[in-house]
Amino acid sequence: MSPAATENYRKLMQMAAELADLSSAEALLGWDQETKMPRKGIEGRAQVSATLAGVHHERLTRPEMGEALAALRGNGTALDDEARAQIEDLWWSYTRATKLPGDLVRRLAETRSRATAVWAEARAAKDFPRFAPHLKEIIALSREVAEAYGYEADVYDALLEEYEPGARTADTAVVLSEVKDFLVPFLRAIAESRKEIDLTPVLGPFDRAKQAAFGEQVVRAMGFDLDAGRIDTANHPFCSGIHPGDVRLATRYKDDIRVGLFGTIHEAGHGLYEQGVAAALGRTPLGSIRSLGIHESQSRLWENNVGLSLPFWKAFYPSLQATFPGPLADVPLDTFFAAVNDVRPSFIRIEADEVTYNLHVVVRFELEHELINGRLGVDDLPEAWNARYAEYLGITPPTPDVGVLQDIHWSSGLFGYFPTYTLGSLNAAQFYAAAARDIPSLESRIERGDLIPLKDWLVENVHRWGNRFKPEELVERATGHPTRADEFIAYMKAKYEPLYGLR
Amino acid sequence: MSPAATENYRKLMQMAAELADLSSAEALLGWDQETKMPRKGIEGRAQVSATLAGVHHERLTRPEMGEALAALRGNGTALDDEARAQIEDLWWSYTRATKLPGDLVRRLAETRSRATAVWAEARAAKDFPRFAPHLKEIIALSREVAEAYGYEADVYDALLEEYEPGARTADTAVVLSEVKDFLVPFLRAIAESRKEIDLTPVLGPFDRAKQAAFGEQVVRAMGFDLDAGRIDTANHPFCSGIHPGDVRLATRYKDDIRVGLFGTIHEAGHGLYEQGVAAALGRTPLGSIRSLGIHESQSRLWENNVGLSLPFWKAFYPSLQATFPGPLADVPLDTFFAAVNDVRPSFIRIEADEVTYNLHVVVRFELEHELINGRLGVDDLPEAWNARYAEYLGITPPTPDVGVLQDIHWSSGLFGYFPTYTLGSLNAAQFYAAAARDIPSLESRIERGDLIPLKDWLVENVHRWGNRFKPEELVERATGHPTRADEFIAYMKAKYEPLYGLR
Repeated sequence: MSPAATENYRKLMQMAAELADLSSAEALLGWDQETKMPRKGIEGRAQVSATLAGVHHERLTRPEMGEALAALRGNGTALDDEARAQIEDLWWSYTRATKLPGDLVRRLAETRSRATAVWAEARAAKDFPRFAPHLKEIIALSREVAEAYGYEADVYDALLEEYEPGARTADTAVVLSEVKDFLVPFLRAIAESRKEIDLTPVLGPFDRAKQAAFGEQVVRAMGFDLDAGRIDTANHPFCSGIHPGDVRLATRYKDDIRVGLFGTIHEAGHGLYEQGVAAALGRTPLGSIRSLGIHESQSRLWENNVGLSLPFWKAFYPSLQATFPGPLADVPLDTFFAAVNDVRPSFIRIEADEVTYNLHVVVRFELEHELINGRLGVDDLPEAWNARYAEYLGITPPTPDVGVLQDIHWSSGLFGYFPTYTLGSLNAAQFYAAAARDIPSLESRIERGDLIPLKDWLVENVHRWGNRFKPEELVERATGHPTRADEFIAYMKAKYEPLYGLR
Repeated sequence: MSPAATENYRKLMQMAAELADLSSAEALLGWDQETKMPRKGIEGRAQVSATLAGVHHERLTRPEMGEALAALRGNGTALDDEARAQIEDLWWSYTRATKLPGDLVRRLAETRSRATAVWAEARAAKDFPRFAPHLKEIIALSREVAEAYGYEADVYDALLEEYEPGARTADTAVVLSEVKDFLVPFLRAIAESRKEIDLTPVLGPFDRAKQAAFGEQVVRAMGFDLDAGRIDTANHPFCSGIHPGDVRLATRYKDDIRVGLFGTIHEAGHGLYEQGVAAALGRTPLGSIRSLGIHESQSRLWENNVGLSLPFWKAFYPSLQATFPGPLADVPLDTFFAAVNDVRPSFIRIEADEVTYNLHVVVRFELEHELINGRLGVDDLPEAWNARYAEYLGITPPTPDVGVLQDIHWSSGLFGYFPTYTLGSLNAAQFYAAAARDIPSLESRIERGDLIPLKDWLVENVHRWGNRFKPEELVERATGHPTRADEFIAYMKAKYEPLYGLR
């Protein structure tokens, strides 16, 4: 680089580091709101969050930023690959942000914060109409955002881009249709197998403190560093990468051991990704992971491809039995393994089994796509939700707390987020298959409780790169081809056909 | 106000509200660092805190702020009293901040954050030399700050002003000398009384979860709203008023019940002050309390004048006995009351009794005054500390963790803070005496466990005003005269002379 370009680049990275710090502060405010904040803090917190979002936006869009970016992009051949990727990443954020008026950003942050609080109350009260006006407000603001960003084919594209850079609604709809077209008859075949799995071993009640202790044991075995993170409880499980050295998991426990256990493993999968980003990318644009389809692949790989596998339970079941001798001492491994892999249509997405899970996602993707396009109104949403559940899963939620009010996403304005869950399932199947090709005797190492070779493979092939590659390129580098449905479908069949005697 | 002045005032208050929000975010970062943050988060957190401090400073000192303030101050007669007080308060912050270069602010925040972490390690390792280079750095930066602020007589004045607006070192030194001149012989007389108080009832061990439950019962009785606050544990007790609706107490528990119990009551006294500021002052300059001599009066009034009084224990001792029937069922009230009021020179300030407490403060005030003036070097500090303890309290700390390393203040750069603790004791005695004059049968209401009339008196006379009045004016309005040592001395004598048979 020329001395002028070097100086420009240094200034740009300094500005980017301050933006990363502001994001960290915003992440902490959000984490705290969901886990620790007292009830009456909500109004004050909404204002603090709005102000921080405003400051962030103001600093991201300041003229010095645009000038430095323009100068460096015009001078591209002099930059090394990583520097070019840093600049393109920041350019992506900058151009998106300059399209949004600061006032819209502030209104959105404030409305989100309030809507999230009302959503929690409405869910507890099973009262959709209480939440409806806030959802309308959020949708109207999300459309304003999409119009400001601009799009070619579909207003939803502009929102999807936020969570899956480069993805288009039409393509995503095709992949999700393939998944749905496979799953709906597959689920029907499972139902028709009439195989009854005994759920008694997992329904509990299991003592929550002991659940937490066992969960922590698994999280440590996965290689999650609890000196650089923590585990708390919240209404809705999540993972927050606040800054390097501080990655936080939130989970929840119910009597049914599957809820807390697989929720914890899921969030720890996200947490490993955050902890695995190369230290040199800390406080840089590439240090912040943007593709949720990749992020979700890490959580679902650990939750499903590992946590629901027989090798994993060969390693960990003795310790679980020792933790809960009362209910589990006399339950054989095979019985327990069948119970955690029980396939059964149910209402709550985050408690769903692996087979029905992606049908929950398809419902949400289809509905939010229609909401954003104005083809579905908020007042008609509960009915549409229930109709879609009847069609795909064969069940109808009795109350909105286990139906349309169950997820935090819409109250938080996260439209375009849901389809990335299914992209995550597909990527998880691909990454796991690739890791199994690369790591000698992967399954027998997992059987011995040694999860570290898999974690190291993921760090090497996925985590350490941060946001260096677009999702498609990252997946292709690690697995040999871009994201497809076929390895996921093959994995589903290989696991569930024998369990349900379908072959 | 003229339309132009009204518009200027509106803009100013909007800028001030954003500054209040930034302060809230900084407060949350600080609270989290002391209570929840994982160990390896420290480096990242230091950068986030430094960036937020930089943004805060930049926005406080921007030209629009100076212009609006100058225009409104030049137009003073058109403003009502409260608006004038708002403007003067913001002017105080603005002028102090404009004197500090942004770079100094950033270096200070970063150094503080790191030094605090090293202090915690050094204290655990009883290793003063590990902390010494960080303390030197903090002192050098504090002197830079004082020089930038400017002062007339004493470099320490510029630092004291931060915590006790309007106070001067020379005056403070006189009041603290009066206190010391009373306490040193008073403590000697107590020692010579040879009265041996039995500490067995308070030394425990007491179960920590039950201590927390009893503490919460007392905090609720004081009128602290736990829907607008919370209680956590930390290495060093503190109270953080994050924003209206969110006031957090941090305490710690030891086997000795006095540590957690009176620490909790103390912090709840601070917390009541934060919760009691008039809602209309939220997000305004006057909503943030600046005088620590007043803040500390609230904590010490509840901790000592109430929490260590016989009427209080007539109300709460039965419940404490019910919580800990094993150790306390057979201990009469008088025996317990004497034990919590035991006077005994000891090493740790925050565990000290009421009589020796202010001698701990005098040691720190004298030493930090000399450190800042360069009359004492950091390498000589441990020896100077121990010599002063020998002279005033008659004891010598065996290791630095219970000596010079015990307090978080210096690692956090809080020079000028310590003397406000003693101003707090003096103000507490004055406020309590005034409340006792105003509230019919105050003592018999406390005996019945009804603490709310006292809390309401404090809200009315102290809390609701926020930073509306300078400390001296506030004290005079509430008690009839400014802060003096005599009511504190009278209170000490009235309580401890009979306990130790000195009359």
